[in-house]
Amino acid sequence: MTERKEFRVAVVGATGAVGQQMIKTLENRDFPVSELVLLSSARSAGSKVIYKGNEITVEEAKPESFAGVDIALFSAGGSVSKQLAPEAVRHGAIVVDNTSAFRMDEHIPLVVPEVNEEDLLNHNGIIANPNCSTIQMVVALEPLRKRYGLDKIIVSTYQAVSGAGGAAVKEMEDQTRAILDGKDIDPQILPVKSGEKHYQIAFNAIPQIDTFVENGFTYEEMKMINETKKIMHMPELQIAATCVRLPVGTGHSESVYIEMTEGGVSATDVKALLAESPGVVLQDDPEQQLYPMPALCVGKRDVFVGRIRKDLDNDKGFHMWVVSDNLLKGAAWNSVQIAESLVKLGLVK
Amino acid sequence: MTERKEFRVAVVGATGAVGQQMIKTLENRDFPVSELVLLSSARSAGSKVIYKGNEITVEEAKPESFAGVDIALFSAGGSVSKQLAPEAVRHGAIVVDNTSAFRMDEHIPLVVPEVNEEDLLNHNGIIANPNCSTIQMVVALEPLRKRYGLDKIIVSTYQAVSGAGGAAVKEMEDQTRAILDGKDIDPQILPVKSGEKHYQIAFNAIPQIDTFVENGFTYEEMKMINETKKIMHMPELQIAATCVRLPVGTGHSESVYIEMTEGGVSATDVKALLAESPGVVLQDDPEQQLYPMPALCVGKRDVFVGRIRKDLDNDKGFHMWVVSDNLLKGAAWNSVQIAESLVKLGLVK
Repeated sequence: MTERKEFRVAVVGATGAVGQQMIKTLENRDFPVSELVLLSSARSAGSKVIYKGNEITVEEAKPESFAGVDIALFSAGGSVSKQLAPEAVRHGAIVVDNTSAFRMDEHIPLVVPEVNEEDLLNHNGIIANPNCSTIQMVVALEPLRKRYGLDKIIVSTYQAVSGAGGAAVKEMEDQTRAILDGKDIDPQILPVKSGEKHYQIAFNAIPQIDTFVENGFTYEEMKMINETKKIMHMPELQIAATCVRLPVGTGHSESVYIEMTEGGVSATDVKALLAESPGVVLQDDPEQQLYPMPALCVGKRDVFVGRIRKDLDNDKGFHMWVVSDNLLKGAAWNSVQIAESLVKLGLVK
Repeated sequence: MTERKEFRVAVVGATGAVGQQMIKTLENRDFPVSELVLLSSARSAGSKVIYKGNEITVEEAKPESFAGVDIALFSAGGSVSKQLAPEAVRHGAIVVDNTSAFRMDEHIPLVVPEVNEEDLLNHNGIIANPNCSTIQMVVALEPLRKRYGLDKIIVSTYQAVSGAGGAAVKEMEDQTRAILDGKDIDPQILPVKSGEKHYQIAFNAIPQIDTFVENGFTYEEMKMINETKKIMHMPELQIAATCVRLPVGTGHSESVYIEMTEGGVSATDVKALLAESPGVVLQDDPEQQLYPMPALCVGKRDVFVGRIRKDLDNDKGFHMWVVSDNLLKGAAWNSVQIAESLVKLGLVK
C-alpha cells in the first residue's frame, strides 16, 4: 500500500460561479486534498458548501487565511488577486489565479497544460489561468501549430452569459421570461456591470465583452490576442478577435479561421490530427449533422471541434468551430488541471 | 396635377413571414399599387389581409393568377418559384424572386440596388433577390470595394430564427419557455426542417443553416460566397463564410473581416465613407457603447455597421460588425426596393 501525498487547497471566491465549479472539479477529479479551505468576501462568508459529503463553512479571505495552504485557486476578481495572491505566496502557497491580474506579467507563466505545461517550471509562486475564450482556442490550435506551423488567426466568438457571472445568467433568464410575457425589461448588468449603458441580452447579440481599448478592440478581444501569443510563445503571430455575447447560459463557441505555415494539408489531415490531440474531442460529421454546440458541452471538460473545412481560396487556410464549457476548461477545470500538473511535476512542496 | 403611374402587384407567399413584410413594406413605401393580388398555397388560400384599410382575400397561386399583373414578388419557396415564375413572365409580369431558385442563373440578374442596380437593365423577366445574409454584407462592403478595392472576406454570421420561417420562431419561443420552466423539449424544425436531426435552439448556437455541400460548407455558406461574387462582379474575390443560427427572433449579425486592395486607409476613413453610403447607418462609438445589435434593428430598412477596427497586423485588413433586419433589407424590403428601381428605370411596361 502506497500513501498518496495530499495537499491543503484553498479556493478564493468559493461562492462564485467559477469557485463552485472549482470545488466540484476538485471532487470529481479526486484531487489529493487533505483539507479544503473555502474563502470569499466578508459578504458571502458563513455560507456552507458540501465537499465529499462534508459541510465546509466559507470564511472571509484575509492574508492569514493562507497559513499552511499548499495550493490556492483564486477566482474572486482581479483586485482580490492583486491584494491577496502575493500574501498567499508569502505564506508558502502556490497560487493558480483565474483573473486577468497577472496574466501578462512576464515573470508569471500563463498556462494551458495541453499547450505549455513546461512553463510551470519557471513559476515564482503565481501561475495565471488564461481567459476562457483563449483557452479553448489554443487547445484546438496547438496541435496544428506544432505539426504545420501557424501564421494567422481570425476568430469571432459566441460567448455565454455565465462568463459574466451568476447574476448575469439570472438577468438573462428573468429578461427572457419578461419578453416572452410581453413585459418591460430593465437591463442592469450586461454587457459590463460598471458600464454606463446596459442592454438586453435575451434574444439579442451584444458585440461588447469587457470595456473598450483605444484601438477600438475590447479588452476581451485584446486578451485573446495577447494571451494566445504568450501561451504559444509566438509574439509574431498575426491574430485578431471579435468577441460577442449571446443569450446562452454556459458554453462558449468560436468561429476560427487560421492560416498555417505549411501548404498542401487536407481537412482530413486536420481532423485526424485533432482526433488524437489531448483535451480535444472531434465532433465533425456533416452527413450525421454532427458538430459541437454549447448546449451539449455543459459539464464536460473537453474542447469540442467540428465544422473543419479547408478554405476555398487559400491552400494554407482552414475554418473550424470550437466549443467548450467556459466555466470548466475555460476556468475551473483549467485551474485544477494546472494544480494537477504542479503536483505531477513535483512543484508543490 | 400629375397622375402617377400605378401597377398591378402580386405577392406570392402572402401569408408567410416574408410575404407579410412585403405587404407592409409596399404600404409603408406607398408603392404605386393599382391592385394588390395576394397569392399562396391552396392550404393558406382564403386568409384575409388588410392593405391600406382594405381587406384582401388571399387566393391560391395558379398560372392564370398572373393575368394582368405587372410586378410579381415571389417568396413561397424555390419549387413554387421554379414552377410559377416563368408562368408569371409569360403573362407579362416582371418577377422579383426571393428564393434561391434562379440566383445563380447567369441569365438572371441578382440585385441589391445599392450595389448593382444597373444589372436590372439586362433582365429577362425574372430578377433574383439575394440571400438575406449576403444582402446586408454587400451593402456594407460595396462602398469600400469601390473606393479601395476588395481582395478577401472572412465572415462569421449570427443569424436569427425568423430566417427559417414563422414556425421556427414559435418553436424557439415555446422551447425557451419550456427550458425556463424545467420541462422537456422536442425540437422538430431547426436547423433544417427536412433534416434527420433537430436540435435545441433556445440558449444554444447551431453551426448549421441549410444542408451540407460535399466540401464541408453548408449551402447557406456557399450562397454567401457565390452570390457575393456575382453581385459584385468579382469571380476572383476570396471569400469564406461560417453561418450560425442563434436564439434571436429577427435581425442577422455578421462579424466581417476584409482585406482591401489599397493600404494606408484608417478606421476613420472607413467610418467616414460608410457614414455617407446608401442604405448604411453607421453606429460606431465605443465610448458611448454605440454599436449595432439585432434587438435594435427590427422593423428598420437600413444596414447598421459598427465595431470598425483596423487589423493590428495587416495594413489592408479591417474588422466590422454588420446588423440588419433579415426580413426587411434581407428579404421584403430589398424585393420592394428592386421593384422601385424597376419603376424608376422605366422597366415596368
